[in-house]
Amino acid sequence: MTDPTTPGYSDDKTAVLKRLRRVEGQVRGLTRMVEDDTYCIDVLTQVSATTKALEAVALKLLDEHLAHCVVDAARAGGPEAQIKVKEASDAIARLVRS
Amino acid sequence: MTDPTTPGYSDDKTAVLKRLRRVEGQVRGLTRMVEDDTYCIDVLTQVSATTKALEAVALKLLDEHLAHCVVDAARAGGPEAQIKVKEASDAIARLVRS
Amino acid sequence: MTDPTTPGYSDDKTAVLKRLRRVEGQVRGLTRMVEDDTYCIDVLTQVSATTKALEAVALKLLDEHLAHCVVDAARAGGPEAQIKVKEASDAIARLVRS
Amino acid sequence: MTDPTTPGYSDDKTAVLKRLRRVEGQVRGLTRMVEDDTYCIDVLTQVSATTKALEAVALKLLDEHLAHCVVDAARAGGPEAQIKVKEASDAIARLVRS
Repeated sequence: MTDPTTPGYSDDKTAVLKRLRRVEGQVRGLTRMVEDDTYCIDVLTQVSATTKALEAVALKLLDEHLAHCVVDAARAGGPEAQIKVKEASDAIARLVRS
Repeated sequence: MTDPTTPGYSDDKTAVLKRLRRVEGQVRGLTRMVEDDTYCIDVLTQVSATTKALEAVALKLLDEHLAHCVVDAARAGGPEAQIKVKEASDAIARLVRS
Repeated sequence: MTDPTTPGYSDDKTAVLKRLRRVEGQVRGLTRMVEDDTYCIDVLTQVSATTKALEAVALKLLDEHLAHCVVDAARAGGPEAQIKVKEASDAIARLVRS
Repeated sequence: MTDPTTPGYSDDKTAVLKRLRRVEGQVRGLTRMVEDDTYCIDVLTQVSATTKALEAVALKLLDEHLAHCVVDAARAGGPEAQIKVKEASDAIARLVRS
């Protein structure tokens, strides 16, 4: 069973961090576009691209969480698996609604 | 382990069917609104409510799928758990993007 | 200026009604899938397709609303244009969050 | 009519920039959370909050665009209004699907 202090994304931590740095760069790019009075529609196109990049990070984290934390809890037996599933379902609901 | 022919939502089948019949009624209501030349914004408000109701059905199905099919596959051991997680992750990605 | 009793989608009413009837058929298809104990992931794929079809109806209605009601109100002058824009922005926010 | 080099958000530029800097801070916070091995679900909660903040920026930009660029084009007459509406509708579609 996974060490409880190790999150599900630990194997892909470098990849997740790389994606987050790219998102940070995209947000800084948005700031520059607005400072430079870029046309609204062009700013909006970049906001949509940034939102999609953030969603991709979320889907990656969720996939790792299901594959490690949820599967490990199920294998360990006991009520922990249902707690993990409930947590994951709530996180999915927040994502779908955001 | 769950009988492979029994979907994860089998315990809540009646509840899922009840929600789907309500969504069907909402879509019929939308048709009537358009036939009656209801103001666009009022039709749009009802479309958003119907989309939210459909998303709630999806989140319910997904929660049952994780709690039954994914947890059962993890407990049974073998490569099946990772296949189930991959399927669930792909379904979540489709939901988040729809 | 447009007759206030004529919604923006009146020219495309037949097309909008056709799409809504297709969505109604998709929701009935979902009910049948659940009655027949179809595998959760296959039901979820169809829920995503139905949500996308409903969103396409919303985007069509919104486009017609902007092209007719909002543009006509702007041309007519007076405070009506800002009221229409506020209504449209609120409808867009509901859509984005649903 | 608005100067074509002035985007619709020019009155609220300071407010938009402030929101974007807050989003940038949220993304940097996400990076720190992942570096510190924060539990997946807690990272996901913050990703959802960041996505919502970005969407709020998009809705603000879109509202300003409709209220200024689209309304001004409609008042100026000619085919420009329909071009602006088409552009706005496409941006809304990208937002709804992102």
